[in-house]
Amino acid sequence: MNGSELDHFYMQLAMEEAEKAAAKGEVPIGAVIVRDGEVIARAHNLRETTQNAVTHAELLAIQEACQKLGSWRLENTQLYVTLEPCPMCAGAILQSRIPRVIYGARDVKAGSVDSLYRLLNDERFNHQCDVTENVLAEECGQLLTNFFRALRENKKKKKRESLL
Amino acid sequence: MNGSELDHFYMQLAMEEAEKAAAKGEVPIGAVIVRDGEVIARAHNLRETTQNAVTHAELLAIQEACQKLGSWRLENTQLYVTLEPCPMCAGAILQSRIPRVIYGARDVKAGSVDSLYRLLNDERFNHQCDVTENVLAEECGQLLTNFFRALRENKKKKKRESLL
Repeated sequence: MNGSELDHFYMQLAMEEAEKAAAKGEVPIGAVIVRDGEVIARAHNLRETTQNAVTHAELLAIQEACQKLGSWRLENTQLYVTLEPCPMCAGAILQSRIPRVIYGARDVKAGSVDSLYRLLNDERFNHQCDVTENVLAEECGQLLTNFFRALRENKKKKKRESLL
Repeated sequence: MNGSELDHFYMQLAMEEAEKAAAKGEVPIGAVIVRDGEVIARAHNLRETTQNAVTHAELLAIQEACQKLGSWRLENTQLYVTLEPCPMCAGAILQSRIPRVIYGARDVKAGSVDSLYRLLNDERFNHQCDVTENVLAEECGQLLTNFFRALRENKKKKKRESLL
């Protein structure tokens, strides 16, 4: 596989993670971390399940990768995530020195890699990342659209039932 | 105690946490989270001990508070931290909806509350914080200065010893 095909391959794994989140009623966002062609961490958003504000997919994947490598420095790794990281997750990417980040859909409300801020490419910090956006963006975004549509329909249904 | 005295009191607790970090050879940064006058979480930086990139004082305190309250929403809380939060920690503060943040010293290299960014007061996000800076700033900064000075002296000493 060439570079672009590899990016698609790993993003599909991140999408599988996002689907696991949706199955638990969590906003479907998934992430994987790859090193030397090996997936060393995979995780999905678990905020509602854990009731822990920091359990975004990226934060969980980063912690799993640190544990696996026995180091807070995730050198020679790539992080794939279905949605553009928020400030917390972009900050965690900087903290863990991940050299390359690949994401699917933009997050116009909180995305801090391209949309609202460009935290991964600020020369004032002691680390910068190589960023690739727009990998399976439509498919990654569709996961979110479908999830929120189902949520709205479910709410409407419940409201109708309560009026009967 | 009036508001300012209370801020000093809780910041001293955060400084005690920072001192615990220093005793472990960790960069001395400490945080506490308070709710209705009760300290519900206290933590210090543990990055080297855990080899986990996200174990900053604020992240650990936020997770402890979420666990204690059984909720990812830390409503009616105040977070005290000895150093201005980095982007990851500022992002975690937004994620957990902490209404008020009080910090000691500014971090001119990575501070993202006032120094490099003003992440806690960006109207585009779905949460903003009331921020008080400069509470025992000199004392909080001194903890860091002392720590890094001791580290440098220790390195020099080791170098001299290796040359004997």
